[in-house]
Amino acid sequence: MYSLQFTSEPSSYPNGLLERDFTVNGVPGVLWSPLSDPADRAPLVLMAHGGGNHKKHPAMSGRAQRLVSGCGFHVAVIDAPGHGDRPRTAHDEAEIAELFRARAAGEPEGPIVVRYNDHLARLAVPEYRATLDALQELPEIGADGPVGFWGINMGTAIGVPFVASDPRVTAAVFGQHWPDALAEKAAQITVPIEFDLQWDDEHISREQGLALFDAFASTEKSLHVNAGRHKDLPRFEADSAVRFFARHLGRPVSSSAS
Amino acid sequence: MYSLQFTSEPSSYPNGLLERDFTVNGVPGVLWSPLSDPADRAPLVLMAHGGGNHKKHPAMSGRAQRLVSGCGFHVAVIDAPGHGDRPRTAHDEAEIAELFRARAAGEPEGPIVVRYNDHLARLAVPEYRATLDALQELPEIGADGPVGFWGINMGTAIGVPFVASDPRVTAAVFGQHWPDALAEKAAQITVPIEFDLQWDDEHISREQGLALFDAFASTEKSLHVNAGRHKDLPRFEADSAVRFFARHLGRPVSSSAS
Repeated sequence: MYSLQFTSEPSSYPNGLLERDFTVNGVPGVLWSPLSDPADRAPLVLMAHGGGNHKKHPAMSGRAQRLVSGCGFHVAVIDAPGHGDRPRTAHDEAEIAELFRARAAGEPEGPIVVRYNDHLARLAVPEYRATLDALQELPEIGADGPVGFWGINMGTAIGVPFVASDPRVTAAVFGQHWPDALAEKAAQITVPIEFDLQWDDEHISREQGLALFDAFASTEKSLHVNAGRHKDLPRFEADSAVRFFARHLGRPVSSSAS
Repeated sequence: MYSLQFTSEPSSYPNGLLERDFTVNGVPGVLWSPLSDPADRAPLVLMAHGGGNHKKHPAMSGRAQRLVSGCGFHVAVIDAPGHGDRPRTAHDEAEIAELFRARAAGEPEGPIVVRYNDHLARLAVPEYRATLDALQELPEIGADGPVGFWGINMGTAIGVPFVASDPRVTAAVFGQHWPDALAEKAAQITVPIEFDLQWDDEHISREQGLALFDAFASTEKSLHVNAGRHKDLPRFEADSAVRFFARHLGRPVSSSAS
Protein backbone atom coordinates (compact mmCIF):
# COMPACT_ATOMS: atom_id res chain seq x y z
CA MET A 1 0.00 0.00 0.00
CA TYR A 2 1.01 3.55 -0.60
CA SER A 3 0.85 5.47 2.61
CA LEU A 4 -0.88 8.69 1.63
CA GLN A 5 -1.29 10.79 4.73
CA PHE A 6 -2.77 14.24 4.80
CA THR A 7 -0.55 16.20 7.19
CA SER A 8 -2.48 19.46 7.38
CA GLU A 9 -6.07 20.42 7.96
CA PRO A 10 -7.67 21.26 4.62
CA SER A 11 -7.36 25.01 4.30
CA SER A 12 -9.48 26.99 1.90
CA TYR A 13 -8.19 30.17 0.31
CA PRO A 14 -9.78 33.32 -1.02
CA ASN A 15 -8.65 32.33 -4.52
CA GLY A 16 -10.97 29.34 -4.36
CA LEU A 17 -8.45 26.51 -3.97
CA LEU A 18 -8.48 23.70 -1.46
CA GLU A 19 -4.87 23.13 -0.32
CA ARG A 20 -3.88 19.89 1.43
CA ASP A 21 -0.38 18.89 2.51
CA PHE A 22 0.39 15.19 2.35
CA THR A 23 3.19 12.67 2.50
CA VAL A 24 3.59 9.49 0.45
CA ASN A 25 6.13 7.10 1.92
CA GLY A 26 7.50 10.07 3.83
CA VAL A 27 7.92 12.34 0.79
CA PRO A 28 6.14 15.66 1.42
CA GLY A 29 3.74 17.00 -1.18
CA VAL A 30 0.84 19.36 -1.68
CA LEU A 31 -2.48 18.74 -3.39
CA TRP A 32 -4.51 21.70 -4.70
CA SER A 33 -8.14 20.97 -5.61
CA PRO A 34 -11.30 22.78 -6.61
CA LEU A 35 -13.83 23.46 -3.86
CA SER A 36 -16.37 21.17 -5.46
CA ASP A 37 -18.29 18.08 -4.53
CA PRO A 38 -15.64 15.37 -3.89
CA ALA A 39 -17.78 12.96 -5.90
CA ASP A 40 -17.03 15.02 -9.03
CA ARG A 41 -13.95 13.38 -10.46
CA ALA A 42 -11.47 15.65 -12.21
CA PRO A 43 -8.17 15.14 -14.02
CA LEU A 44 -4.87 15.40 -12.13
CA VAL A 45 -1.80 17.38 -13.18
CA LEU A 46 1.42 16.36 -11.45
CA MET A 47 4.05 19.09 -11.40
CA ALA A 48 7.76 19.09 -10.56
CA HIS A 49 9.52 22.22 -9.32
CA GLY A 50 12.81 23.69 -10.52
CA GLY A 51 16.25 23.27 -8.99
CA GLY A 52 16.86 25.04 -5.67
CA ASN A 53 13.14 25.52 -5.38
CA HIS A 54 10.28 23.71 -3.59
CA LYS A 55 6.71 22.42 -3.90
CA LYS A 56 5.02 25.66 -2.82
CA HIS A 57 7.22 28.13 -4.67
CA PRO A 58 5.05 30.86 -6.24
CA ALA A 59 5.75 29.37 -9.69
CA MET A 60 4.02 26.19 -8.48
CA SER A 61 1.11 27.81 -6.62
CA GLY A 62 0.58 30.23 -9.52
CA ARG A 63 0.29 27.40 -12.03
CA ALA A 64 -1.98 25.50 -9.65
CA GLN A 65 -4.22 28.55 -9.36
CA ARG A 66 -4.62 28.63 -13.16
CA LEU A 67 -5.22 24.88 -13.47
CA VAL A 68 -7.63 24.53 -10.55
CA SER A 69 -9.64 27.74 -11.00
CA GLY A 70 -9.46 27.76 -14.78
CA CYS A 71 -10.02 24.07 -15.53
CA GLY A 72 -11.25 22.42 -12.34
CA PHE A 73 -8.23 20.09 -12.24
CA HIS A 74 -6.42 18.67 -9.23
CA VAL A 75 -2.73 19.63 -9.04
CA ALA A 76 -0.01 17.94 -6.97
CA VAL A 77 3.68 18.66 -6.42
CA ILE A 78 6.20 16.83 -4.24
CA ASP A 79 9.50 18.15 -2.95
CA ALA A 80 12.45 16.79 -4.93
CA PRO A 81 15.16 14.95 -3.00
CA GLY A 82 17.30 17.48 -1.11
CA HIS A 83 14.74 20.24 -1.72
CA GLY A 84 12.01 21.98 0.30
CA ASP A 85 11.20 20.12 3.51
CA ARG A 86 13.58 17.25 2.70
CA PRO A 87 17.11 16.93 4.12
CA ARG A 88 20.20 17.42 1.99
CA THR A 89 22.71 14.60 1.87
CA ALA A 90 26.47 15.12 1.81
CA HIS A 91 26.27 14.41 -1.94
CA ASP A 92 23.67 17.19 -2.36
CA GLU A 93 25.87 19.63 -0.46
CA ALA A 94 28.92 18.71 -2.52
CA GLU A 95 27.11 19.12 -5.86
CA ILE A 96 25.55 22.44 -4.83
CA ALA A 97 28.95 23.71 -3.70
CA GLU A 98 30.43 22.62 -7.01
CA LEU A 99 27.65 24.45 -8.90
CA PHE A 100 28.24 27.65 -6.94
CA ARG A 101 32.00 27.34 -7.48
CA ALA A 102 31.55 26.96 -11.25
CA ARG A 103 29.10 29.89 -11.34
CA ALA A 104 31.51 32.14 -9.42
CA ALA A 105 34.37 31.09 -11.69
CA GLY A 106 32.32 31.81 -14.82
CA GLU A 107 32.52 28.16 -15.90
CA PRO A 108 29.62 26.41 -17.67
CA GLU A 109 26.95 25.17 -15.26
CA GLY A 110 25.53 22.63 -17.69
CA PRO A 111 27.76 19.62 -16.96
CA ILE A 112 27.14 19.90 -13.22
CA VAL A 113 23.38 20.52 -13.52
CA VAL A 114 22.97 17.66 -16.00
CA ARG A 115 24.82 15.22 -13.75
CA TYR A 116 23.16 16.32 -10.49
CA ASN A 117 19.66 16.46 -11.96
CA ASP A 118 20.13 12.99 -13.43
CA HIS A 119 21.04 11.76 -9.95
CA LEU A 120 17.96 13.42 -8.43
CA ALA A 121 15.70 12.09 -11.19
CA ARG A 122 16.72 8.51 -10.44
CA LEU A 123 15.50 9.03 -6.88
CA ALA A 124 12.44 11.09 -7.79
CA VAL A 125 10.90 8.94 -10.54
CA PRO A 126 9.78 6.13 -8.18
CA GLU A 127 8.53 8.82 -5.77
CA TYR A 128 6.36 10.33 -8.52
CA ARG A 129 5.03 6.89 -9.39
CA ALA A 130 4.16 6.17 -5.75
CA THR A 131 2.54 9.60 -5.41
CA LEU A 132 0.40 8.96 -8.47
CA ASP A 133 -0.55 5.50 -7.16
CA ALA A 134 -1.65 7.07 -3.88
CA LEU A 135 -3.50 10.06 -5.35
CA GLN A 136 -5.42 7.83 -7.75
CA GLU A 137 -6.92 6.10 -4.70
CA LEU A 138 -8.69 9.32 -3.74
CA PRO A 139 -12.32 9.18 -4.92
CA GLU A 140 -12.13 12.70 -6.43
CA ILE A 141 -9.22 11.63 -8.68
CA GLY A 142 -9.66 7.92 -9.36
CA ALA A 143 -7.54 5.47 -11.30
CA ASP A 144 -8.97 5.91 -14.78
CA GLY A 145 -8.87 9.66 -15.36
CA PRO A 146 -6.39 11.53 -17.53
CA VAL A 147 -3.11 12.63 -15.93
CA GLY A 148 -0.87 15.51 -17.00
CA PHE A 149 2.72 16.31 -16.07
CA TRP A 150 4.24 19.81 -16.00
CA GLY A 151 7.89 20.47 -15.18
CA ILE A 152 10.47 22.91 -16.59
CA ASN A 153 14.24 22.94 -15.86
CA MET A 154 14.88 20.32 -13.14
CA GLY A 155 11.18 19.46 -13.49
CA THR A 156 11.98 18.28 -17.01
CA ALA A 157 15.00 16.29 -15.82
CA ILE A 158 12.65 14.41 -13.49
CA GLY A 159 9.60 14.46 -15.75
CA VAL A 160 11.08 13.01 -18.93
CA PRO A 161 12.16 9.70 -17.35
CA PHE A 162 8.96 9.65 -15.24
CA VAL A 163 6.61 10.17 -18.21
CA ALA A 164 8.65 7.72 -20.32
CA SER A 165 8.11 5.08 -17.66
CA ASP A 166 4.49 5.71 -16.68
CA PRO A 167 1.75 5.16 -19.27
CA ARG A 168 -0.83 6.84 -17.03
CA VAL A 169 0.48 10.28 -18.05
CA THR A 170 -1.36 11.37 -21.20
CA ALA A 171 0.05 14.87 -21.87
CA ALA A 172 3.12 16.77 -20.65
CA VAL A 173 4.72 20.21 -20.64
CA PHE A 174 8.52 20.26 -20.51
CA GLY A 175 11.32 22.68 -21.34
CA GLN A 176 14.67 24.32 -20.71
CA HIS A 177 17.04 21.42 -20.24
CA TRP A 178 20.04 19.86 -21.92
CA PRO A 179 19.48 16.72 -24.01
CA ASP A 180 22.44 14.74 -22.66
CA ALA A 181 20.78 12.54 -20.04
CA LEU A 182 17.24 12.89 -21.42
CA ALA A 183 17.14 12.37 -25.21
CA GLU A 184 17.03 8.59 -24.97
CA LYS A 185 14.06 8.69 -22.56
CA ALA A 186 12.35 11.42 -24.61
CA ALA A 187 12.46 9.08 -27.61
CA GLN A 188 10.19 6.70 -25.64
CA ILE A 189 7.53 9.39 -25.07
CA THR A 190 4.63 9.44 -27.54
CA VAL A 191 1.98 11.49 -25.70
CA PRO A 192 1.32 15.11 -26.76
CA ILE A 193 3.88 17.56 -25.40
CA GLU A 194 4.45 21.29 -25.27
CA PHE A 195 8.09 22.31 -24.85
CA ASP A 196 9.49 25.72 -23.85
CA LEU A 197 12.92 27.08 -24.61
CA GLN A 198 14.57 30.47 -24.49
CA TRP A 199 16.28 31.71 -27.67
CA ASP A 200 19.03 33.56 -25.80
CA ASP A 201 19.55 31.10 -22.96
CA GLU A 202 23.00 31.71 -21.47
CA HIS A 203 23.22 28.11 -20.19
CA ILE A 204 21.47 25.91 -22.77
CA SER A 205 22.46 26.49 -26.40
CA ARG A 206 19.85 26.63 -29.16
CA GLU A 207 21.23 23.40 -30.59
CA GLN A 208 20.93 21.64 -27.23
CA GLY A 209 17.39 22.90 -26.60
CA LEU A 210 16.21 22.01 -30.10
CA ALA A 211 17.87 18.58 -29.89
CA LEU A 212 15.83 17.68 -26.81
CA PHE A 213 12.58 18.84 -28.44
CA ASP A 214 13.47 16.87 -31.55
CA ALA A 215 14.07 13.71 -29.54
CA PHE A 216 10.44 13.24 -28.42
CA ALA A 217 8.61 10.56 -30.42
CA SER A 218 5.25 12.35 -29.96
CA THR A 219 3.35 12.97 -33.18
CA GLU A 220 1.69 15.93 -31.46
CA LYS A 221 4.43 18.17 -30.14
CA SER A 222 4.71 21.95 -29.97
CA LEU A 223 7.81 24.01 -29.29
CA HIS A 224 7.49 27.51 -27.87
CA VAL A 225 10.63 29.59 -28.20
CA ASN A 226 10.81 33.09 -26.79
CA ALA A 227 13.48 35.76 -27.14
CA GLY A 228 15.29 36.28 -23.85
CA ARG A 229 17.62 34.66 -21.36
CA HIS A 230 17.16 31.56 -19.22
CA LYS A 231 15.04 33.17 -16.53
CA ASP A 232 12.98 35.33 -18.92
CA LEU A 233 10.42 32.62 -19.83
CA PRO A 234 7.29 34.77 -20.32
CA ARG A 235 4.30 34.36 -18.03
CA PHE A 236 1.99 33.85 -20.99
CA GLU A 237 3.66 30.45 -21.48
CA ALA A 238 2.02 29.35 -18.23
CA ASP A 239 -1.35 30.33 -19.72
CA SER A 240 -0.45 28.43 -22.87
CA ALA A 241 0.41 25.32 -20.84
CA VAL A 242 -2.95 25.55 -19.06
CA ARG A 243 -4.73 25.66 -22.43
CA PHE A 244 -2.60 22.69 -23.57
CA PHE A 245 -3.79 20.65 -20.59
CA ALA A 246 -7.37 21.84 -21.09
CA ARG A 247 -7.21 20.56 -24.71
CA HIS A 248 -5.65 17.23 -23.82
CA LEU A 249 -7.20 16.42 -20.45
CA GLY A 250 -10.62 17.42 -21.65
CA ARG A 251 -11.81 20.46 -19.72
CA PRO A 252 -12.49 23.85 -21.32
CA VAL A 253 -10.61 26.80 -19.85
CA SER A 254 -13.00 29.19 -18.14
CA SER A 255 -12.68 32.82 -19.08
CA SER A 256 -11.06 33.66 -15.75
CA ALA A 257 -7.92 31.84 -16.88
CA SER A 258 -7.90 32.88 -20.53
CA MET B 1 -6.43 60.82 -51.78
CA TYR B 2 -6.96 57.13 -51.41
CA SER B 3 -10.10 56.09 -53.18
CA LEU B 4 -11.79 53.77 -50.70
CA GLN B 5 -15.05 52.62 -52.17
CA PHE B 6 -17.41 50.19 -50.55
CA THR B 7 -18.56 47.94 -53.38
CA SER B 8 -21.21 45.90 -51.57
CA GLU B 9 -24.12 46.67 -49.30
CA PRO B 10 -23.09 45.95 -45.72
CA SER B 11 -24.28 42.48 -44.97
CA SER B 12 -24.66 41.17 -41.47
CA TYR B 13 -24.12 37.52 -40.66
CA PRO B 14 -25.43 35.16 -38.03
CA ASN B 15 -21.95 34.95 -36.57
CA GLY B 16 -22.15 38.61 -35.66
CA LEU B 17 -19.78 40.12 -38.20
CA LEU B 18 -20.37 43.08 -40.48
CA GLU B 19 -18.79 42.26 -43.87
CA ARG B 20 -18.09 45.04 -46.37
CA ASP B 21 -16.35 44.63 -49.74
CA PHE B 22 -14.25 47.57 -50.86
CA THR B 23 -11.64 48.67 -53.36
CA VAL B 24 -8.68 50.95 -52.79
CA ASN B 25 -7.21 52.29 -56.04
CA GLY B 26 -8.96 49.41 -57.75
CA VAL B 27 -7.56 46.65 -55.48
CA PRO B 28 -10.43 44.58 -54.07
CA GLY B 29 -10.59 43.93 -50.34
CA VAL B 30 -12.92 42.96 -47.55
CA LEU B 31 -13.43 44.61 -44.17
CA TRP B 32 -14.96 42.63 -41.32
CA SER B 33 -16.16 44.64 -38.32
CA PRO B 34 -18.07 44.20 -35.09
CA LEU B 35 -21.75 45.15 -35.14
CA SER B 36 -21.18 47.96 -32.69
CA ASP B 37 -21.66 51.68 -32.60
CA PRO B 38 -19.40 53.08 -35.35
CA ALA B 39 -18.29 55.77 -32.95
CA ASP B 40 -16.54 53.07 -30.90
CA ARG B 41 -13.06 52.95 -32.35
CA ALA B 42 -11.33 49.60 -32.40
CA PRO B 43 -7.91 48.32 -33.50
CA LEU B 44 -7.40 47.04 -37.04
CA VAL B 45 -5.68 43.80 -38.05
CA LEU B 46 -4.56 43.64 -41.68
CA MET B 47 -4.21 40.12 -43.02
CA ALA B 48 -2.61 38.71 -46.17
CA HIS B 49 -3.73 35.40 -47.65
CA GLY B 50 -1.57 32.50 -48.81
CA GLY B 51 -0.43 31.70 -52.34
CA GLY B 52 -3.11 30.47 -54.74
CA ASN B 53 -5.69 31.64 -52.28
CA HIS B 54 -7.89 34.77 -51.90
CA LYS B 55 -9.23 37.37 -49.47
CA LYS B 56 -12.32 35.40 -48.45
CA HIS B 57 -10.76 31.94 -48.21
CA PRO B 58 -12.09 30.17 -45.09
CA ALA B 59 -8.67 30.58 -43.45
CA MET B 60 -9.21 34.34 -43.70
CA SER B 61 -12.87 34.47 -42.69
CA GLY B 62 -12.19 32.01 -39.85
CA ARG B 63 -9.43 34.21 -38.44
CA ALA B 64 -11.62 37.29 -38.89
CA GLN B 65 -14.41 35.58 -36.97
CA ARG B 66 -12.04 34.99 -34.05
CA LEU B 67 -10.61 38.53 -34.09
CA VAL B 68 -13.91 40.38 -34.54
CA SER B 69 -16.12 38.29 -32.23
CA GLY B 70 -13.39 37.51 -29.73
CA CYS B 71 -11.67 40.89 -29.50
CA GLY B 72 -13.92 43.45 -31.19
CA PHE B 73 -11.24 44.27 -33.78
CA HIS B 74 -11.68 45.30 -37.41
CA VAL B 75 -10.03 42.93 -39.90
CA ALA B 76 -9.18 43.65 -43.53
CA VAL B 77 -7.68 41.55 -46.33
CA ILE B 78 -6.96 42.50 -49.93
CA ASP B 79 -6.46 40.16 -52.86
CA ALA B 80 -2.78 39.78 -53.75
CA PRO B 81 -1.77 40.61 -57.34
CA GLY B 82 -2.88 37.80 -59.66
CA HIS B 83 -5.10 36.32 -56.95
CA GLY B 84 -8.83 36.28 -56.13
CA ASP B 85 -10.75 38.84 -58.17
CA ARG B 86 -7.61 40.25 -59.80
CA PRO B 87 -6.39 39.29 -63.29
CA ARG B 88 -3.31 37.18 -63.84
CA THR B 89 -0.56 38.60 -66.03
CA ALA B 90 1.48 36.53 -68.48
CA HIS B 91 4.25 36.60 -65.86
CA ASP B 92 1.87 35.15 -63.24
CA GLU B 93 0.82 32.40 -65.66
CA ALA B 94 4.43 31.54 -66.48
CA GLU B 95 5.51 31.37 -62.82
CA ILE B 96 2.50 29.26 -61.84
CA ALA B 97 3.19 26.89 -64.76
CA GLU B 98 6.81 26.65 -63.65
CA LEU B 99 5.73 25.86 -60.08
CA PHE B 100 3.38 23.10 -61.24
CA ARG B 101 6.09 21.71 -63.52
CA ALA B 102 8.62 21.57 -60.67
CA ARG B 103 6.03 19.98 -58.37
CA ALA B 104 5.16 17.32 -60.93
CA ALA B 105 8.86 16.63 -61.54
CA GLY B 106 9.52 16.30 -57.80
CA GLU B 107 11.89 19.27 -57.87
CA PRO B 108 12.14 21.72 -54.95
CA GLU B 109 9.42 24.39 -55.03
CA GLY B 110 11.34 26.80 -52.82
CA PRO B 111 13.38 28.68 -55.42
CA ILE B 112 10.30 29.37 -57.55
CA VAL B 113 8.06 30.34 -54.64
CA VAL B 114 10.73 32.62 -53.16
CA ARG B 115 11.25 34.40 -56.47
CA TYR B 116 7.58 34.71 -57.39
CA ASN B 117 6.47 35.80 -53.91
CA ASP B 118 9.21 38.42 -53.86
CA HIS B 119 7.85 39.76 -57.15
CA LEU B 120 4.30 39.84 -55.78
CA ALA B 121 5.44 41.47 -52.54
CA ARG B 122 7.00 44.38 -54.43
CA LEU B 123 3.59 45.05 -55.98
CA ALA B 124 1.58 44.35 -52.84
CA VAL B 125 3.47 46.42 -50.25
CA PRO B 126 2.34 49.80 -51.65
CA GLU B 127 -1.18 48.38 -51.97
CA TYR B 128 -1.17 47.46 -48.28
CA ARG B 129 0.08 50.92 -47.39
CA ALA B 130 -2.67 52.57 -49.47
CA THR B 131 -5.28 50.27 -47.94
CA LEU B 132 -4.14 51.19 -44.45
CA ASP B 133 -4.17 54.89 -45.36
CA ALA B 134 -7.75 54.56 -46.60
CA LEU B 135 -9.06 52.41 -43.74
CA GLN B 136 -7.61 54.79 -41.16
CA GLU B 137 -9.87 57.51 -42.58
CA LEU B 138 -12.92 55.56 -41.44
CA PRO B 139 -14.16 57.00 -38.13
CA GLU B 140 -14.50 53.53 -36.56
CA ILE B 141 -10.79 52.84 -37.18
CA GLY B 142 -9.02 56.20 -37.09
CA ALA B 143 -5.40 57.14 -37.64
CA ASP B 144 -4.01 56.74 -34.15
CA GLY B 145 -5.12 53.26 -33.10
CA PRO B 146 -2.93 50.17 -32.95
CA VAL B 147 -2.57 48.08 -36.12
CA GLY B 148 -1.71 44.40 -36.37
CA PHE B 149 -0.57 42.33 -39.35
CA TRP B 150 -1.19 38.58 -39.79
CA GLY B 151 0.10 36.61 -42.77
CA ILE B 152 1.59 33.11 -43.13
CA ASN B 153 3.29 31.63 -46.24
CA MET B 154 2.87 34.19 -49.06
CA GLY B 155 1.29 36.43 -46.43
CA THR B 156 4.70 36.51 -44.74
CA ALA B 157 6.49 37.23 -48.03
CA ILE B 158 4.26 40.31 -48.39
CA GLY B 159 4.02 41.15 -44.70
CA VAL B 160 7.70 41.24 -43.76
CA PRO B 161 8.62 44.01 -46.22
CA PHE B 162 5.31 45.78 -45.48
CA VAL B 163 5.76 45.78 -41.70
CA ALA B 164 9.44 46.72 -42.08
CA SER B 165 8.39 49.78 -44.08
CA ASP B 166 5.32 50.91 -42.12
CA PRO B 167 5.71 52.08 -38.52
CA ARG B 168 1.94 52.06 -38.00
CA VAL B 169 2.00 48.27 -37.55
CA THR B 170 2.65 47.52 -33.88
CA ALA B 171 2.47 43.69 -33.72
CA ALA B 172 2.64 40.94 -36.34
CA VAL B 173 2.15 37.20 -36.83
CA PHE B 174 4.27 35.58 -39.53
CA GLY B 175 5.48 32.11 -40.44
CA GLN B 176 6.32 29.35 -42.88
CA HIS B 177 8.62 31.02 -45.38
CA TRP B 178 12.21 30.85 -46.58
CA PRO B 179 14.62 33.50 -45.31
CA ASP B 180 16.26 34.26 -48.68
CA ALA B 181 14.37 37.38 -49.76
CA LEU B 182 13.12 38.31 -46.28
CA ALA B 183 15.89 38.12 -43.66
CA GLU B 184 17.23 41.58 -44.44
CA LYS B 185 13.79 43.18 -44.07
CA ALA B 186 13.06 41.10 -40.96
CA ALA B 187 16.18 42.60 -39.37
CA GLN B 188 14.46 46.00 -39.61
CA ILE B 189 11.40 44.85 -37.67
CA THR B 190 11.37 45.58 -33.93
CA VAL B 191 7.68 45.20 -33.00
CA PRO B 192 6.52 42.06 -31.14
CA ILE B 193 6.06 39.06 -33.40
CA GLU B 194 4.74 35.52 -33.19
CA PHE B 195 6.16 33.16 -35.82
CA ASP B 196 4.88 29.71 -36.86
CA LEU B 197 6.85 26.92 -38.46
CA GLN B 198 6.32 23.23 -39.04
CA TRP B 199 8.99 20.85 -37.78
CA ASP B 200 8.57 18.38 -40.65
CA ASP B 201 7.91 20.88 -43.45
CA GLU B 202 8.68 19.15 -46.75
CA HIS B 203 9.43 22.49 -48.46
CA ILE B 204 11.09 24.71 -45.86
CA SER B 205 13.94 23.13 -43.90
CA ARG B 206 14.26 23.60 -40.14
CA GLU B 207 17.40 25.63 -40.68
CA GLN B 208 15.63 27.94 -43.15
CA GLY B 209 12.60 28.42 -40.90
CA LEU B 210 14.71 29.07 -37.81
CA ALA B 211 16.97 31.46 -39.75
CA LEU B 212 14.01 33.67 -40.66
CA PHE B 213 12.75 33.71 -37.05
CA ASP B 214 16.25 34.52 -35.87
CA ALA B 215 16.53 37.46 -38.27
CA PHE B 216 13.82 39.60 -36.62
CA ALA B 217 15.24 42.39 -34.46
CA SER B 218 12.20 42.30 -32.14
CA THR B 219 13.06 41.95 -28.46
CA GLU B 220 9.65 40.33 -27.95
CA LYS B 221 9.41 37.42 -30.34
CA SER B 222 7.88 33.97 -29.97
CA LEU B 223 8.37 30.96 -32.21
CA HIS B 224 5.73 28.24 -32.33
CA VAL B 225 6.94 25.01 -33.89
CA ASN B 226 4.59 22.07 -34.37
CA ALA B 227 5.29 18.53 -35.48
CA GLY B 228 3.87 17.89 -38.93
CA ARG B 229 4.20 18.79 -42.57
CA HIS B 230 3.74 22.14 -44.32
CA LYS B 231 -0.05 22.07 -44.43
CA ASP B 232 -0.50 20.60 -40.93
CA LEU B 233 -0.25 23.92 -39.04
CA PRO B 234 -2.65 23.24 -36.14
CA ARG B 235 -5.82 25.27 -35.74
CA PHE B 236 -4.92 26.16 -32.18
CA GLU B 237 -2.18 28.39 -33.60
CA ALA B 238 -4.94 30.66 -34.95
CA ASP B 239 -6.29 30.94 -31.40
CA SER B 240 -2.78 31.67 -30.17
CA ALA B 241 -2.39 34.45 -32.76
CA VAL B 242 -5.68 35.98 -31.64
CA ARG B 243 -4.45 36.02 -28.05
CA PHE B 244 -1.17 37.55 -29.25
CA PHE B 245 -3.08 40.41 -30.90
CA ALA B 246 -5.33 40.77 -27.86
CA ARG B 247 -2.20 41.19 -25.68
CA HIS B 248 -0.51 43.66 -27.99
CA LEU B 249 -3.41 45.64 -29.44
CA GLY B 250 -5.01 45.98 -26.06
CA ARG B 251 -8.31 44.13 -26.00
CA PRO B 252 -8.99 41.12 -23.80
CA VAL B 253 -10.12 37.96 -25.58
CA SER B 254 -13.71 37.14 -24.66
CA SER B 255 -14.36 33.61 -23.52
CA SER B 256 -16.04 32.74 -26.80
CA ALA B 257 -12.64 32.84 -28.50
CA SER B 258 -10.57 31.21 -25.80
